[in-house]
Amino acid sequence: MATRVAINGYGTIGKRVADAVAAQSDMEIAGVTKTAPSFGCELAVRRGFPLYCTFDDTARISAFDTGGYECAGGLSKLLAAADVVVDCSPGKTGGENLAKYRQAGVKAIFQGGEPHNVTDLSYSSSANHDANLGADATRVVSCNTTGLSRTLVPLWQHCGSLAVECTMVRRAADPGDSGKGPINAIKPVLKVPSHHGPDLMTVCPEISINSLAVAVPTTIMHVHAIVATLPSGHGLTTESVVELLRTQPRVIVMHGGESRITTTAEVMEMARDIGRRWGDLHEIFVWEDGVSLQDDTLYYFQAIHQESDVVPENVDAIRALTGSETDWRASVAKTDAAIAAAQGTG
Amino acid sequence: MATRVAINGYGTIGKRVADAVAAQSDMEIAGVTKTAPSFGCELAVRRGFPLYCTFDDTARISAFDTGGYECAGGLSKLLAAADVVVDCSPGKTGGENLAKYRQAGVKAIFQGGEPHNVTDLSYSSSANHDANLGADATRVVSCNTTGLSRTLVPLWQHCGSLAVECTMVRRAADPGDSGKGPINAIKPVLKVPSHHGPDLMTVCPEISINSLAVAVPTTIMHVHAIVATLPSGHGLTTESVVELLRTQPRVIVMHGGESRITTTAEVMEMARDIGRRWGDLHEIFVWEDGVSLQDDTLYYFQAIHQESDVVPENVDAIRALTGSETDWRASVAKTDAAIAAAQGTG
Amino acid sequence: MATRVAINGYGTIGKRVADAVAAQSDMEIAGVTKTAPSFGCELAVRRGFPLYCTFDDTARISAFDTGGYECAGGLSKLLAAADVVVDCSPGKTGGENLAKYRQAGVKAIFQGGEPHNVTDLSYSSSANHDANLGADATRVVSCNTTGLSRTLVPLWQHCGSLAVECTMVRRAADPGDSGKGPINAIKPVLKVPSHHGPDLMTVCPEISINSLAVAVPTTIMHVHAIVATLPSGHGLTTESVVELLRTQPRVIVMHGGESRITTTAEVMEMARDIGRRWGDLHEIFVWEDGVSLQDDTLYYFQAIHQESDVVPENVDAIRALTGSETDWRASVAKTDAAIAAAQGTG
Amino acid sequence: MATRVAINGYGTIGKRVADAVAAQSDMEIAGVTKTAPSFGCELAVRRGFPLYCTFDDTARISAFDTGGYECAGGLSKLLAAADVVVDCSPGKTGGENLAKYRQAGVKAIFQGGEPHNVTDLSYSSSANHDANLGADATRVVSCNTTGLSRTLVPLWQHCGSLAVECTMVRRAADPGDSGKGPINAIKPVLKVPSHHGPDLMTVCPEISINSLAVAVPTTIMHVHAIVATLPSGHGLTTESVVELLRTQPRVIVMHGGESRITTTAEVMEMARDIGRRWGDLHEIFVWEDGVSLQDDTLYYFQAIHQESDVVPENVDAIRALTGSETDWRASVAKTDAAIAAAQGTG
Repeated sequence: MATRVAINGYGTIGKRVADAVAAQSDMEIAGVTKTAPSFGCELAVRRGFPLYCTFDDTARISAFDTGGYECAGGLSKLLAAADVVVDCSPGKTGGENLAKYRQAGVKAIFQGGEPHNVTDLSYSSSANHDANLGADATRVVSCNTTGLSRTLVPLWQHCGSLAVECTMVRRAADPGDSGKGPINAIKPVLKVPSHHGPDLMTVCPEISINSLAVAVPTTIMHVHAIVATLPSGHGLTTESVVELLRTQPRVIVMHGGESRITTTAEVMEMARDIGRRWGDLHEIFVWEDGVSLQDDTLYYFQAIHQESDVVPENVDAIRALTGSETDWRASVAKTDAAIAAAQGTG
Repeated sequence: MATRVAINGYGTIGKRVADAVAAQSDMEIAGVTKTAPSFGCELAVRRGFPLYCTFDDTARISAFDTGGYECAGGLSKLLAAADVVVDCSPGKTGGENLAKYRQAGVKAIFQGGEPHNVTDLSYSSSANHDANLGADATRVVSCNTTGLSRTLVPLWQHCGSLAVECTMVRRAADPGDSGKGPINAIKPVLKVPSHHGPDLMTVCPEISINSLAVAVPTTIMHVHAIVATLPSGHGLTTESVVELLRTQPRVIVMHGGESRITTTAEVMEMARDIGRRWGDLHEIFVWEDGVSLQDDTLYYFQAIHQESDVVPENVDAIRALTGSETDWRASVAKTDAAIAAAQGTG
Repeated sequence: MATRVAINGYGTIGKRVADAVAAQSDMEIAGVTKTAPSFGCELAVRRGFPLYCTFDDTARISAFDTGGYECAGGLSKLLAAADVVVDCSPGKTGGENLAKYRQAGVKAIFQGGEPHNVTDLSYSSSANHDANLGADATRVVSCNTTGLSRTLVPLWQHCGSLAVECTMVRRAADPGDSGKGPINAIKPVLKVPSHHGPDLMTVCPEISINSLAVAVPTTIMHVHAIVATLPSGHGLTTESVVELLRTQPRVIVMHGGESRITTTAEVMEMARDIGRRWGDLHEIFVWEDGVSLQDDTLYYFQAIHQESDVVPENVDAIRALTGSETDWRASVAKTDAAIAAAQGTG
Repeated sequence: MATRVAINGYGTIGKRVADAVAAQSDMEIAGVTKTAPSFGCELAVRRGFPLYCTFDDTARISAFDTGGYECAGGLSKLLAAADVVVDCSPGKTGGENLAKYRQAGVKAIFQGGEPHNVTDLSYSSSANHDANLGADATRVVSCNTTGLSRTLVPLWQHCGSLAVECTMVRRAADPGDSGKGPINAIKPVLKVPSHHGPDLMTVCPEISINSLAVAVPTTIMHVHAIVATLPSGHGLTTESVVELLRTQPRVIVMHGGESRITTTAEVMEMARDIGRRWGDLHEIFVWEDGVSLQDDTLYYFQAIHQESDVVPENVDAIRALTGSETDWRASVAKTDAAIAAAQGTG
């Protein structure tokens, strides 16, 4: 029987996760929530997802009708019809929501905007699927941490130990967000080291990592400049590192010089050609000609699509919590094949 | 029997037109051309489009094999298998190409980068489908002219005459083009009046129009600030103009205040939600609350997706040249329904 | 005896006006106000301007000492030592402030952020110096209106009548303001027509003008795309219009093609070479090769340095209110020569 | 007797160095060169600098007269009247020029756009003034290397050894350069490690350093994210590092939270308030609240004004070559005081 999945918060991440879940043969969307009638409801209707209100308040529920949308009820009613809820509500309301989910007896998945201690368990497909098997609640790590996990965990697995410094060059606003700046400036994140890197240790505590972050005037991707110190005797070369990364799931390695993909603009254009909805790129993009191993120090750049790399991870996390697929590579393969089939990008 | 369509130049516009053509039940893709093996070939292969070389040169043709792509031959061979060719090659090579197309006995459609006098005939679905019926060659007007045609032609048809001044605020580079600036400046187009507005008169000579243009540091859409002088006794109101525009094909009218779509960023985000390939927006976007009729002067803003608004127009133009559909509204409806069905956005 | 000038609000505009006033032989700075100790106080100290608190509140006044700055007292004390106050406080507090200024018997000058009806009198050096002679309070019009006044008033004076449509392409944030976006979008101002153009009629009611405005992702200048309808029999040519503009005070006319000044970036770089403090450009910049007269329709582009074009106008306005210089051209010449001498840009 | 200084190449750097040199009591400008008459000549005339042609070609020399500028002759004539030439010509012509300078018996200073091996000697005031005393030719290191030198050399001097990884977030174009992009993308420099960091070793070979670089869509400053490994037993704390940096010449340390200077936009605005010509910032800006020492790993951010931090270094380098001031701190103090006096920023 298909796992019934509720999406609490049908926004930037929620709408993407809903599509990815709906594409899976072992899952179905029980419903999605919005706080009020808006353009997002239109999309839910078009997809055929039952629409619920984020609140159980009768007035707010009936406001949907007034706005021209059929609302199936409040959050409680949705939870009663679900096995797992994916919480895609705005950050920092996780603790409060978790209580509701527990009371309803529904397993819960949070996003990286929430702190690790809401669930005391975090998730990344490539890092700790095993540790999440059968859990009641977990947190899919942020887009940045997911990106680090995809490339650093296999390196750590190969080397046995790894010490990493990462500078995160972050897009300052999402493409659909016109309110935020800066227009012409660089903004260092003055909390040093930043929280971004160390968050990786919630899914792979064996990697020692710190990070610095700066925000820059672009909307489309983050770029990580990574410096990893390998243990002596690592036995790797620049070429073998490239090969190791190339064989990881959800990692794309391309040569910038040969492909003329030299900036995040061309990476995103390639993603549009691939043809996923919203022009998304679920994969982490690594520039082959930006990888360089100097003695024990490994340098590389990777680009992160902040709106979508966590999307398939949420699908895998559902399987971890339900225990329906214990092998992370099998889940990843199943998730990605189903999305490709549904979005015509196979 | 389906019209066999060749796409000469499988780039930004060519790849989109190819998909739109392939979606039509009365057309099929005979093949697409590339100058050399590259990532664009990958896309053609995935779509199942026969791949040809832009040149008839044997060395260049065999370079495709070396690059790992099967090449069916040179341009001449493709033309021999086609009824109509859509020329999406870089601008200003039209005259030269037209000679080849004529020699091959293939009808030809050029893009707005070419000057009107290459064909002495231009095309816009809403303006002059009739005048193009059965022609040997035409030019689909540019993204900007197409945008003007969609909203100004119905206004002119209603009023009988129209004098227009338009300031075009243009994106300085496409999303996948990282080389061009400016990063932090406004660049007026010092050819005054600019060529953009008057190009509308190639498809609707009765509208009197001039334009000024400035380029600004954004990649996603052009915005037109339009001032139209209506003849006295026009009988219109701000509300009736909104209604007139709302009922035009390929025009979306939305209230910026209510929908929170207040910039081109949110317009493009809505387009991504609609879900066409590449996040395209074939429609012209008009802000309802930006329309204002003051006595005989009409003001409004419209946003143009420079990469895609001409795509369905090319499909209609094919039908005009073959004469397979004489009614423009019928062609538009057929084109758009087929694209919606193929791209799952119906 | 020198006119004693108070600057209420020592921020972006206030700091510039203070320097310009201090450069004049017939004026002196009585003091400047800040709301609290901050980096701006540093600048006032360095310039030798007495520092006052915007409020009369003792606690706020003594906070300056704590912050390491000598504060001479509250606003009342400053007004008691001044003949004229230039109000450079944030917009929309003008009405409230005017009451204080009147009570203190001090003449007052407001900035364009305030509405005209605060004073029922507005000021632009080139438009209505006469009408401001001896007045108790006036408002120097905004940077945009000042720019329109500099070029349109002489055209109107030559032609006798003028009907204008102007599209204002506005920088979305100032250079020192990193919080505002958009990063990658165009934002139309949906109040149509915008308030910008018609504000010109507060200083020159004989010009008929409307405007549209869009905000774009740049920080350095506004650009106006102007379409002016001249009365028939105007007797002007493109060349004579260029000549007319070239001979106006505080207007720079340069050929973009020859000077390679083709965007606002190069205009601002030229301003840095001129060498005024903050790299300011008090003049309106008109591209000679962007001026074009087509029958009775005149097209041109002008660039406006939003932070500084009103600065010398404030100095002239002081002379208008005190009646110390009745000829606007004489005041302009005196103002500009004194600034040039003080800033070494003569 | 004053050192006679020629400036070969009166562009972005040359015009600034000329002003800085002219401000010194022990130096005078013998002349400046331009390749052809242009707006830059205007500036030289205004400053009273003799104007020469970059070439000895008679036709090119007389073109200046045609353009309305008095030209004193070709480069050879200028060199005959100079003791030292500062080469500010576009990069990569250094070797060719050096031959001319040697033949004329003039000492020469190159800029960081030239490779170290043109002179086999490089210069940074804080690093190796001594090693440059009496030399015939040297190269002032680039803006980035100068920035690294200012903060890392004193750290190294304190600690005895230092291993550094630096990620350089670079502005993609200068403020007056409107042609270059990207508008909305991040561009990693795929040469890894980049040449930027290791260039520091040309002036301080004892520091071990590598770097990664990315270009971002801003025009105003570079930001360095620095990770330095200190030797154990360094005896430093976060506070003592801040103090060490605060006491270095040409380094400004400010608290971003308290000063509200949180991005490069506000840093540049502060520079405009300081009031140097062109709004320049000769100092390296370090955010106090971005400095953090974690055990032996020191993190900090610094911002670099790419157009001007090397300007005073050129003045010091002149004194090193002539041997007129053997103590680097004395030269720095003299240079900076003279600039402050000339530009009214004391």
